[in-house]
Amino acid sequence: MDITHIMNNFLQPQSVALIGCTRKTGEYSMNILEHLLAYAYSGKLYPVNPNAGEILGIKSYPSIGAVPGQVDLAVISTPRELVPSQLEQCAARGITSAIIVGQGFKDSGDSAGSGLHKQISETVRTRGIRVIGPNTFGTANGFINFCSAFVRFTLAPNPVGIICQSGTFFNGFPEFTLLGKCLDLGNNCDIDFEDGLAYYENDPQVRVIGLHIEGMKNPRIFIDTARRVARKKPIVVLKTGRNAQAARAMQSHTGSLAGDSIIWDAALKSAGLITVYSLEEFFDTIRMFSVTPLMKNNRVAIATFSGATGILTMDALQNSGIDISPLPTAIQQKLEKMAPPWLHVSNPVDYWPIMMGHSDMATAMRDIMDTLLSNEHFGALIVTQGASTRPAGERLLQFLNYLATRYPQKPVISAIAGTYNMEYITAMQKDGRHAGFPSPERAARAIANLWRYSRLFA
Amino acid sequence: MDITHIMNNFLQPQSVALIGCTRKTGEYSMNILEHLLAYAYSGKLYPVNPNAGEILGIKSYPSIGAVPGQVDLAVISTPRELVPSQLEQCAARGITSAIIVGQGFKDSGDSAGSGLHKQISETVRTRGIRVIGPNTFGTANGFINFCSAFVRFTLAPNPVGIICQSGTFFNGFPEFTLLGKCLDLGNNCDIDFEDGLAYYENDPQVRVIGLHIEGMKNPRIFIDTARRVARKKPIVVLKTGRNAQAARAMQSHTGSLAGDSIIWDAALKSAGLITVYSLEEFFDTIRMFSVTPLMKNNRVAIATFSGATGILTMDALQNSGIDISPLPTAIQQKLEKMAPPWLHVSNPVDYWPIMMGHSDMATAMRDIMDTLLSNEHFGALIVTQGASTRPAGERLLQFLNYLATRYPQKPVISAIAGTYNMEYITAMQKDGRHAGFPSPERAARAIANLWRYSRLFA
Repeated sequence: MDITHIMNNFLQPQSVALIGCTRKTGEYSMNILEHLLAYAYSGKLYPVNPNAGEILGIKSYPSIGAVPGQVDLAVISTPRELVPSQLEQCAARGITSAIIVGQGFKDSGDSAGSGLHKQISETVRTRGIRVIGPNTFGTANGFINFCSAFVRFTLAPNPVGIICQSGTFFNGFPEFTLLGKCLDLGNNCDIDFEDGLAYYENDPQVRVIGLHIEGMKNPRIFIDTARRVARKKPIVVLKTGRNAQAARAMQSHTGSLAGDSIIWDAALKSAGLITVYSLEEFFDTIRMFSVTPLMKNNRVAIATFSGATGILTMDALQNSGIDISPLPTAIQQKLEKMAPPWLHVSNPVDYWPIMMGHSDMATAMRDIMDTLLSNEHFGALIVTQGASTRPAGERLLQFLNYLATRYPQKPVISAIAGTYNMEYITAMQKDGRHAGFPSPERAARAIANLWRYSRLFA
Repeated sequence: MDITHIMNNFLQPQSVALIGCTRKTGEYSMNILEHLLAYAYSGKLYPVNPNAGEILGIKSYPSIGAVPGQVDLAVISTPRELVPSQLEQCAARGITSAIIVGQGFKDSGDSAGSGLHKQISETVRTRGIRVIGPNTFGTANGFINFCSAFVRFTLAPNPVGIICQSGTFFNGFPEFTLLGKCLDLGNNCDIDFEDGLAYYENDPQVRVIGLHIEGMKNPRIFIDTARRVARKKPIVVLKTGRNAQAARAMQSHTGSLAGDSIIWDAALKSAGLITVYSLEEFFDTIRMFSVTPLMKNNRVAIATFSGATGILTMDALQNSGIDISPLPTAIQQKLEKMAPPWLHVSNPVDYWPIMMGHSDMATAMRDIMDTLLSNEHFGALIVTQGASTRPAGERLLQFLNYLATRYPQKPVISAIAGTYNMEYITAMQKDGRHAGFPSPERAARAIANLWRYSRLFA
């Protein structure tokens, strides 16, 4: 069976069998069917449970063999002992794609777990059925309201494709849900990173790819695939298990071997991937790429509402590859004409005292940004501002959206302080034109990652 | 005049003159009086404006000399040329404490600015009046609803004392407002870090002190004072201007010389201060100290809802001084009795599969945490969990508050993922018993800083 078709069944299923679907409902029940109904998933659903005639008003079947019609995807949530036989029955039924949810296989400490893992691998090898997992939430697709996790999450049609080895990546952050599209490989006994990458490569709904890697079977094949895909779409990678103790813990998480983190780092970078080193940098970089154009050069202007914030931004940009270039004469002269005579205008541009000298401060602020953006000199602009009140946040939202519309080819990001910063950063991200960050350091890291990719592929 | 009394007038004023108070009101007007009325500040207010009989219903005076009765504090917001004469009039009026708001003094590029700066210093020297600023928002006190900034902020009675050189620190973050008490030194032409430190040292409302330092006049006096105060209260320091370009920018911000960052780092650490390197680490560390007890040893248990999150936490704790110690036999055996037979129980404790095997999952989770906390072995616990829905966040809030009440002497912090994490982290911080963080890396940095202080002074 063609891998694209198989991956399509995993990520874009139109009919799903839920093998081992519980009859319990409500809080704590971990009922996947209940979640799918709540998401308003519109595909066909076939619960399989020998003890139920129907679950939540949906007809239930005693076995996967009894389910009529096409089944694109089977989600197997039975206790671990039953998994090999259920997978066999799925294969016999002609199903191409199965998610194995449960734990206690390669991730367990016992020999029974290893034995069950081997049985699954054998079925995959001999019957051609392909498996995601075990030990996984499976897949999610915010464009069709589908998610196979037994925990309730928030889905959204974001242009993001995630491949991870933990359900924690289904969580997202308040300012941006990653679901988007998501593939949780769990123990990756079969479907692996290269399969997901190749699928996202040609998926027009995916603009940026995020990978959470603990370990994998074929790093060489992965790197070859990633090198090719990175030319088309930015790939952001969080490789974990960087210290020896964490690497040992990983073996009992997904049964992965971490490998040497220095070698991994070098290989990922040489393939043109954007390596990141914290969960926040991972999310921040992905949500920036989802809305921000690439940089044409590494010269960045900083327009700051506060001298101290400009300095924090500069501190954070040290050794980042970003050039906080002096202002070209034309820009310098234009800004000095607007500024009070005592102000020394330079980059970072402290726009507050410039604005304060004008009766129409909003127009002055627009003129300052226009001066910095309408010139080819700068490859990007970082704006810092505060949202200490809702009206301030609302004005900023409108202003940054205006800049994004006026300069669609020029990257503008912002660092927003204040009590309401998260509220308006979230609103901006939802509007899909501008990425804001709650600190100058996070904005600096994001723009540095934008340049790392732009330098290679813009 | 006694410095304690002077600092009290700055931070706890009962009567305030607003010199140069604008008649404009509403958005963009930057009217300090309007903000103070909105905060419901209950002290006496005396606007001084030669062109107004009253402002916002409050009687206005033509000059500071015309104001009757006691004036604890003068806030001078006139154009820079008028500042020296206004300061003189304040001194003549017997006022001990004045905030100079405006820019264009030592921070300016021109000789007029330097001249004005000298005049102010001369008045301070000869007349005994003490000055905060110029180029400052002044002071804030969330316990009495006072803030001298011309921008509206959110105040709260948090046990935090800030000393900074930028109004951006008045912003706070959504999960925690720093205001608290705050002293913005601006160009620190007179009142400096050591004065603020000495005041907070004996202020029973202040439990943790945060410093944002660009530069200062007397580093030696500051370090001596800080060394003494640090024994009583944790002092968290963000020293900026770490790169050469930023250091140059600082001269035009507050007129400060950055000094060598390596020497600063060594001096701050040797005095027992907690150095931090980003705005987020600054806020995170302060809000943790505001609610978390000190650690008795550096052994930390990690109770994680996700194997991957446990690994991210371990990665982030590398070289932090924290020991992710193996479980003592008694704890190991107790947890193994609760766990499914295939689970290899170790630290980090993957509590999800343990919980899942119990019909009453809430009780199982409590028993797991009790097992880790009721033993003297661990100096602290990090809990990771998700708040992907509001009910999940609500349960977590109640659970972590319960742990804080049950184990008041044992530090517990959390890393919370999910769409609703910020909402519940904010609610927890407001309850004042538990500090949660939106990523394992930020939780790891906070606990490492807790240990840095505990090791010296617990």
